[in-house]
Amino acid sequence: MTSPSIPPRCRRDAEATKGAITRAARYLLARHAHGDITLKAVAERAGVSAPLVVKYFGNKDALFAHVMSFEADAEAFLDAPLGRLGRHMVRHLLTGQAERGADPVLRIVFAPLHGERGDVLRANFRAQVVQRLSVRLAGPDAGVRAELAVGMLLGLGVMYGIARGPCLRATAITEITERYAPAVQSFLTPR
Amino acid sequence: MTSPSIPPRCRRDAEATKGAITRAARYLLARHAHGDITLKAVAERAGVSAPLVVKYFGNKDALFAHVMSFEADAEAFLDAPLGRLGRHMVRHLLTGQAERGADPVLRIVFAPLHGERGDVLRANFRAQVVQRLSVRLAGPDAGVRAELAVGMLLGLGVMYGIARGPCLRATAITEITERYAPAVQSFLTPR
Repeated sequence: MTSPSIPPRCRRDAEATKGAITRAARYLLARHAHGDITLKAVAERAGVSAPLVVKYFGNKDALFAHVMSFEADAEAFLDAPLGRLGRHMVRHLLTGQAERGADPVLRIVFAPLHGERGDVLRANFRAQVVQRLSVRLAGPDAGVRAELAVGMLLGLGVMYGIARGPCLRATAITEITERYAPAVQSFLTPR
Repeated sequence: MTSPSIPPRCRRDAEATKGAITRAARYLLARHAHGDITLKAVAERAGVSAPLVVKYFGNKDALFAHVMSFEADAEAFLDAPLGRLGRHMVRHLLTGQAERGADPVLRIVFAPLHGERGDVLRANFRAQVVQRLSVRLAGPDAGVRAELAVGMLLGLGVMYGIARGPCLRATAITEITERYAPAVQSFLTPR
């Protein structure tokens, strides 16, 4: 007898449910104070039971920490050797926007300027995305260069996904990458 | 007898009042449907009388058109010869952020992804900022190049003003301009 394993279909459902819970928590966090949100409200909005939220995420604090983290997104975003990281980041950002309508790294753009939630998002973004990049950079001013490179990428995401520049949206991602990545790369590995 | 003139003090008050009305309209537009907002509600939030709003802006439609326009901001943003426009735009954006906490061009970043208000902001931004830049560019793909250049600037604004990159905020604006403007300029006047 083989040991029981989760059939692929159920695993997919679990991912979909986790996604729905995450989106519900993000929705509520964008509109209410942290302390006013209950796990029950998150569950209701996600269309699942509160115990299911607990099963997947533990308690409310753990769920909110997950929702406000860039950890998993940064890993994919920065997953390339330094010499071609510029191209990788540009392509990753545009592909996420074109295929899923958003890239999770872009969440920082919507961080509220005031209040605890904005501060947590900002602190996470700096530590999990920008600093994670800057420690990989050789040479002087790695911190400034990392911020400028990531800023450039955020701007491309805003132009593509929020302003929805019609010329960019009519241009192949490979061509945009070709044009934009060298400027990003020049901050990562300056000549 | 000299003709009556508005004393400087009153003119300053008028500007402050117009600013308060504009901010109140933006606040309400970000939270309510266009049709649900009354001039009276805008006036109340701005701490002025409804007739004063009418005096300065005419009717509600004219006020909202003003609030969602980038016309005046674009003029200052693009006010330099093409050969040094990259530097001018970077400096303008950073100075606005450092001195007033925001640059009005950055309003596009907060455009809602859905609904009429976001669509109007997007259409205005494209026509009044991006296209106004692209018609000044010589050579092929002026539209794509203008979108990439403006995107780069928006990203710098997001990193400086929303993510509040600590290294950038500790760096002189002239130095950031020195590092960032060449990439912007390369889309305006490619070699």
